[in-house]
Amino acid sequence: VRTAAILVVGDEILSGEIADSNGPYLLARLASAGVRVARVVVTPDDEDAIADDLARLRALSDAVVVSGGIGPTHDDVTRPAAARVLGVPLARHEEAERLIRGFYRERVTDAELSMADWPRGARILLGPRTGTFGFSCCGVHVLPGVPPLFRDLADVLAVELAGPPLHRTELLTHRREGEIAPGLAAGQARAHDVAIGSYPVLEDGRWHVRVVLRGPDAARVAEVAREVRGAIQ
Amino acid sequence: VRTAAILVVGDEILSGEIADSNGPYLLARLASAGVRVARVVVTPDDEDAIADDLARLRALSDAVVVSGGIGPTHDDVTRPAAARVLGVPLARHEEAERLIRGFYRERVTDAELSMADWPRGARILLGPRTGTFGFSCCGVHVLPGVPPLFRDLADVLAVELAGPPLHRTELLTHRREGEIAPGLAAGQARAHDVAIGSYPVLEDGRWHVRVVLRGPDAARVAEVAREVRGAIQ
Repeated sequence: VRTAAILVVGDEILSGEIADSNGPYLLARLASAGVRVARVVVTPDDEDAIADDLARLRALSDAVVVSGGIGPTHDDVTRPAAARVLGVPLARHEEAERLIRGFYRERVTDAELSMADWPRGARILLGPRTGTFGFSCCGVHVLPGVPPLFRDLADVLAVELAGPPLHRTELLTHRREGEIAPGLAAGQARAHDVAIGSYPVLEDGRWHVRVVLRGPDAARVAEVAREVRGAIQ
Repeated sequence: VRTAAILVVGDEILSGEIADSNGPYLLARLASAGVRVARVVVTPDDEDAIADDLARLRALSDAVVVSGGIGPTHDDVTRPAAARVLGVPLARHEEAERLIRGFYRERVTDAELSMADWPRGARILLGPRTGTFGFSCCGVHVLPGVPPLFRDLADVLAVELAGPPLHRTELLTHRREGEIAPGLAAGQARAHDVAIGSYPVLEDGRWHVRVVLRGPDAARVAEVAREVRGAIQ
C-alpha cells in the first residue's frame, strides 16, 4: 500500500500511565517499508471514540493499523467498534478459538473465548515469534497492544504492506532557518514530487538545520537536493 | 480545564525520522495537573490536514495544545491553519515582533518576522527558562516543536490549564485477565464515576495484571477499589 494510518487505543496512554511505544515502532517499520503514514491517533477505551477515529482514518489512507483493545476485559472494545465501522456483525473465528482453547486448556473462560469474536470475514494474522495473533479485514489490521506481541505482528504486517521504496537525502547547514527559508520555498515550489522538510536542531548549545528531502524517484531526489544546496549556501 | 487534546504537527515524526517526545511529555504533565486528555493526533505539515484535525479536536475538548509548525520555513503552516479554524486573519503581534527583532538584530529576515503573524487576538505565551514563546487564542495553545522549547512552555501551560485533581489507585493480581473480567465488568457497571482499566504486563517471563482505578473523588475511588479487590480475588 502507499499510505497507512495508526490508531493506538488505550486510556493508559492518554492518562500518562504508560508511554506509547507501539506507534513509534510501527512508524519506523512502515518508513523502511516505503509506506507513508498519514496520521497517528491515540484514542480512549471507548467504543464510539474508536469507531469514529477508525472511520475517519480509513477515509484518509489505504490501510489502518490498530493497536490494542482486543483483550478479554470490559475495557477491550476495539472488536465491536471495528465490526461497526466495517458494517458486519461479530462472529467467532474458528482458528482463533482453537488457539485460545489450546493455550488455556480446561481453565478457559467465556471472556477469553470472546477474544475470538471478530468482524465477520476477518482473517487471522499470526505472530511467528510469540504465537500471538490479531486480525485483518478490508484494510483494517488489528493487533494486540502489549508491546512484545504488537511488535511480533507489526514486523509481519510491515512486509505485507510494503510499497515502492521512498528515497531520502539530507543536507546540513549552520545558516539560520530564517535565512534559508526563501531558497527552500523556491525549491519546493519547483518540485512537487519531492517533499522538503526543515528541522532546526539544538546540539551542544549551537543551532543547525537539517534539510530532509524525500520522494519516490531517487534521481529526482538527488537533483532537487543539488538545486536546494545551491540555493541555501 | 477538564479535558484537553494534543495535536503534534510534523512530517519528521510521521516519516519515522524523529520519535515524538512532546506528546508523552505533555501527557505526563497534564495527568499531574488533573486534565483528562481526549486524543493525541500526529498530523503532517499540511495546512488542510492541520486545520481539519484542529477543528475536530476543538469540538472534543476544552483546550487543544499544538506542537510545532510555527518556524520560518515553507513547511511551517500551523499559523495560517489555526487562523482559518479560529475564523480570524493573521495579524502581526507587536510583542512577538519586538522579541524576534531583539534576538536577530540587524540580520533579521522577513521569514523570521513572519513568525510573529498570529491569529488576530492571540496572546503571547512566554517560556521562562529559554526565552521562547508561543501563543494562545480561544482555547488553542500553539507551542514550538523543538523539544527543549516545547517543554519550557508546556510547564507553564500545564499550570494554567490545571483542573481539579484526579485520584488513582492500583491493584495487582497474578490471576489472568480472562478470570477477573466478570468481576471488573460488574464493578465498572456499578461505578460510573470511576474509570477501571486493566493492563496485562509481561515481566520476567510471567504475566500479571495491573488494574488501575481513576476518578475525581478520592473516597469513591477507594470504595470501588475495595469492591473490585473483593470481586477479583
